[in-house]
Amino acid sequence: MQTDAVVFDAYGTLFDVRSVQQETEQRFPGHGDAITGTWRRKQLEYTWLRSLMNRYKPFSGVTRDALVYAIKSRGLAPEESQIDDLMSAYLRLTAFPEARQALEQLAGRQRAILTNGDLPLIEPAVKAAGLNDVLDAILTVDTIRIYKPNPQAYALVTEHLGVDAQRVLFVSSNPFDVVGATQFGFRVAWIKRAGGQMDELDAKPAHTVETLTELLSLVD
Amino acid sequence: MQTDAVVFDAYGTLFDVRSVQQETEQRFPGHGDAITGTWRRKQLEYTWLRSLMNRYKPFSGVTRDALVYAIKSRGLAPEESQIDDLMSAYLRLTAFPEARQALEQLAGRQRAILTNGDLPLIEPAVKAAGLNDVLDAILTVDTIRIYKPNPQAYALVTEHLGVDAQRVLFVSSNPFDVVGATQFGFRVAWIKRAGGQMDELDAKPAHTVETLTELLSLVD
Repeated sequence: MQTDAVVFDAYGTLFDVRSVQQETEQRFPGHGDAITGTWRRKQLEYTWLRSLMNRYKPFSGVTRDALVYAIKSRGLAPEESQIDDLMSAYLRLTAFPEARQALEQLAGRQRAILTNGDLPLIEPAVKAAGLNDVLDAILTVDTIRIYKPNPQAYALVTEHLGVDAQRVLFVSSNPFDVVGATQFGFRVAWIKRAGGQMDELDAKPAHTVETLTELLSLVD
Repeated sequence: MQTDAVVFDAYGTLFDVRSVQQETEQRFPGHGDAITGTWRRKQLEYTWLRSLMNRYKPFSGVTRDALVYAIKSRGLAPEESQIDDLMSAYLRLTAFPEARQALEQLAGRQRAILTNGDLPLIEPAVKAAGLNDVLDAILTVDTIRIYKPNPQAYALVTEHLGVDAQRVLFVSSNPFDVVGATQFGFRVAWIKRAGGQMDELDAKPAHTVETLTELLSLVD
């Protein structure tokens, strides 16, 4: 089956969400690792819980709330300026080193991001990483106000890119996203980064690779 | 405002989900604490993810899947018989020591459980803990096939007990459940057990107590 579009998750897949760890450690010495881990876990939990409660809030707000939770979980009282500083670090997350080359290799097909992130959060990160010219579209769930893995999120791809689901290669390092995209009908490549473990949700990815540059061998 | 019904979450609120830790440790020496923690975290995640994906599976199945994930996360290969043994331990979870007395004290109002658990999972636990005669109803989301904190789950209470939301005292130790019930319109008491931290989801409980026996002072 021909591949008309390759669609990437952003956070954890193209961008290293752990890259804020160093700045977190600087502000909260001895707590950087724990805060960063809880921050990410709660960020995802809050997207799921808000979707289930029909209480949408854009990803930038959810990310801020999750950071407040994570700092408090270490027994610390976050100051507004510390939160502001770390949130601005989120606007310039480091892209994984092979991201640009992988996107360049896939030229000739539509290349897009499908992200939970609202545009004020994702656009600066894409620009800071210099990925604008190797992407054809940035699709965000912010336009429909419900988060992945709801099927409506994945439908943004077929609607906006005008492609059939089975001709999309969807790429994510996040197990819940791999499962949601697979169940929607995409062919999915799981980027299995260190420590990755697939969820037990009755769906397995079509492909498992370790780096983004391996994707080229999966498209014809 | 008069209280017509007091409605309890089951797992973590009336029943101690950590009580399976000892049996887990016996089967997987050195891993009991880690497996039990991951088991519970994934159990909840899977309820949220399945609800968002419109892929409902009863709580007993989700609990089993989460246990498989948790064992694998320690680098171990679970055997079917080990899973079966630990799942049957879930049918006789220990009730918190003050649970029965607290329910007795609240006689005269409707006393019910609203749980994610399907009846094959929750009924044996209620029976094993000897709580049948101090409960008027067990309501389960299994009848509507979507998990808490979706508003439809909380609507089971008003529909089945025939009470107004504002005349319900809802009791849970789980922050996400406290938030969901508060946003639905219940008056909520958060049982803040050791290590409990409220989520940053723009809703706070009306009451925070440490034990179930404190509830009596909250009803008139």
